[in-house]
Amino acid sequence: MKCSVYIATSADGYIATSDGGVDWLHTAGNLEADMGTEDMGFKSFMDSVDCMIMGRKCMEMISSFNLTAEQWPYGNIRIVVLSNTIKDAPENLKNKVEMYSGDIYELMKNLENLGCQHAYVDGGATITSFINLKLINEMIITKAPILLGTGIPLFGKLNQKVKLTNSKALSFPNDFTQTTHSLDYS
Amino acid sequence: MKCSVYIATSADGYIATSDGGVDWLHTAGNLEADMGTEDMGFKSFMDSVDCMIMGRKCMEMISSFNLTAEQWPYGNIRIVVLSNTIKDAPENLKNKVEMYSGDIYELMKNLENLGCQHAYVDGGATITSFINLKLINEMIITKAPILLGTGIPLFGKLNQKVKLTNSKALSFPNDFTQTTHSLDYS
Repeated sequence: MKCSVYIATSADGYIATSDGGVDWLHTAGNLEADMGTEDMGFKSFMDSVDCMIMGRKCMEMISSFNLTAEQWPYGNIRIVVLSNTIKDAPENLKNKVEMYSGDIYELMKNLENLGCQHAYVDGGATITSFINLKLINEMIITKAPILLGTGIPLFGKLNQKVKLTNSKALSFPNDFTQTTHSLDYS
Repeated sequence: MKCSVYIATSADGYIATSDGGVDWLHTAGNLEADMGTEDMGFKSFMDSVDCMIMGRKCMEMISSFNLTAEQWPYGNIRIVVLSNTIKDAPENLKNKVEMYSGDIYELMKNLENLGCQHAYVDGGATITSFINLKLINEMIITKAPILLGTGIPLFGKLNQKVKLTNSKALSFPNDFTQTTHSLDYS
């Protein structure tokens, strides 16, 4: 199954401040820029995926936003949350996500058997472990125009170097930039 | 004086492997791509600067390359190397660089008095301390299409968040990407 990353970081590569905060992401960049219908590729990306896999921290972050049905950004796709410590999803995500603990290759096989073809993989720790399992095929990384100086990096330690191909780069009126790469584990 | 950064990192933000190696930089990307006269902006950048400030490690790296006169990439601009531990430049750089130990603002004033208007600031530790002194105005960061997974990060810990403006992004036929930003310390 194709696995893709679509995630935002600071210009220095952090997905959150050291205490897990992402407020900087919502205030970064030129907030007065005319973005028109520009959504930095999110809708087109969401239209291309049919399931999502995220880590527990990522789920807890989303849970903390207490999103209304209108605000929910992930449509009706199947969402699997990886956790070895938590068995039940938070109350406000109970009918949105299913918890999983176990082998990742087996999970991917199960999702394939259910007809899934393209997974959205989210959360720093989950992305790092999926790269280490050589499962990520594509990364779309949007960089907010801010240096945080410290925080939680997107990439944890990787087991091997990974070659990137098919590079594309974009900048947007709000001063965000975005790179897209394929991953080549050979 | 305007201070600019022009530096290459891995896609995950490292300027070198943990042992200081940069071999990966020369083998990264599509080496068979037709780059024509594309030099990823280096000549145009060099034409815009009239002095260079780098750290000791950066100098030692350059010294280790044992460059011939033809290979020397920095023209005839004045090069100042910051070091509190070394008083003399390595033999093969003796007539190329001058050593400096002391206050950075004073150095910049001295260079301005000598007619310098645009400094190329190089080396991870030096760039980080110049950002903390609010001296860097512009950053051109070229990303090699490789995840190293670990190494020496470009940015050390910063004293404050820094807003970036005037973002531009490019991709090149060899799969390298490049972002340019202005820095706003307000």
